[in-house]
Amino acid sequence: MGLFSKDIKTMNDLFVHQLQDIYYAEKQLVMALPKMADKATDKQLKGGFLTHLEETKTHVQRLEQVFEMHGAEVKAVDCPAIDGIIEEADEVTVEVEDKRVLDAALINAAQAAEHYEIARYGSLIAWARQLGRNDCASVLQRTLEEEKATDQKLTTLAEGKVNLRAAG
Amino acid sequence: MGLFSKDIKTMNDLFVHQLQDIYYAEKQLVMALPKMADKATDKQLKGGFLTHLEETKTHVQRLEQVFEMHGAEVKAVDCPAIDGIIEEADEVTVEVEDKRVLDAALINAAQAAEHYEIARYGSLIAWARQLGRNDCASVLQRTLEEEKATDQKLTTLAEGKVNLRAAG
Repeated sequence: MGLFSKDIKTMNDLFVHQLQDIYYAEKQLVMALPKMADKATDKQLKGGFLTHLEETKTHVQRLEQVFEMHGAEVKAVDCPAIDGIIEEADEVTVEVEDKRVLDAALINAAQAAEHYEIARYGSLIAWARQLGRNDCASVLQRTLEEEKATDQKLTTLAEGKVNLRAAG
Repeated sequence: MGLFSKDIKTMNDLFVHQLQDIYYAEKQLVMALPKMADKATDKQLKGGFLTHLEETKTHVQRLEQVFEMHGAEVKAVDCPAIDGIIEEADEVTVEVEDKRVLDAALINAAQAAEHYEIARYGSLIAWARQLGRNDCASVLQRTLEEEKATDQKLTTLAEGKVNLRAAG
């Protein structure tokens, strides 16, 4: 985007811009999730990250589908928010000595990413409906449901097992 | 934290580190919210940002209370995640020409911050309970409920009014 021009003139421009933003974020997560799986000790957590990696690859494809449905160029724009979330995850996890505590920190980091996506997809779906694009909203809704389910699974794993071990 | 030593050795260290992280985040939001209120056109949105500013000042005080209850130094550590979320909010909102579209973008930006906090407080509360600090968990829970209520109010405002105007 231009630094001195105001490039977002309409709701449609905002919708497309945020599609580009979350497209970048999902692609960054495709790169980050295998590293998180490598660091995880708990087998269920490691498996969960790998399952969500496959889902995240599907989310990237769904966004490409939405760009096409909406007649917009498939394009990513920098997303400092997800960069910050991933940077923070790297910084914290490198500081953790105990493997069981590391698992708790990894879940915390992953939930920050999930919640970022939940917030963004929530707005995108509302905007799509407002723009009369229920077809795009339906595709985005499937991803939102998967992000919420992943967040819930992480909470269950943390509170049912990982936190108990980390504090033990 | 040291770059070459692993400073988080226990669940308690992780809890204190994340308290320091969200303490920094809340303080950054105390600075960001008045700017968001200034940019907002819709009176209800502007008022909502100012109300949440007062709540956020209380969240800072509650965190200071939790540090003291837990016998930990009141301290902030850099939080690249919230820096990224705020940076992105600044970048996007400066690009928006139409005031009604700007309101929709501001709600989207605020919800990203709310969801970041919801994720962090959720983990902090679970960890506090695991560490036998139900007293700290109770204080943090009050803040979490306010963050969730703010997120819900923003959704209602977006879907009931702001998005409609922005698309109009």
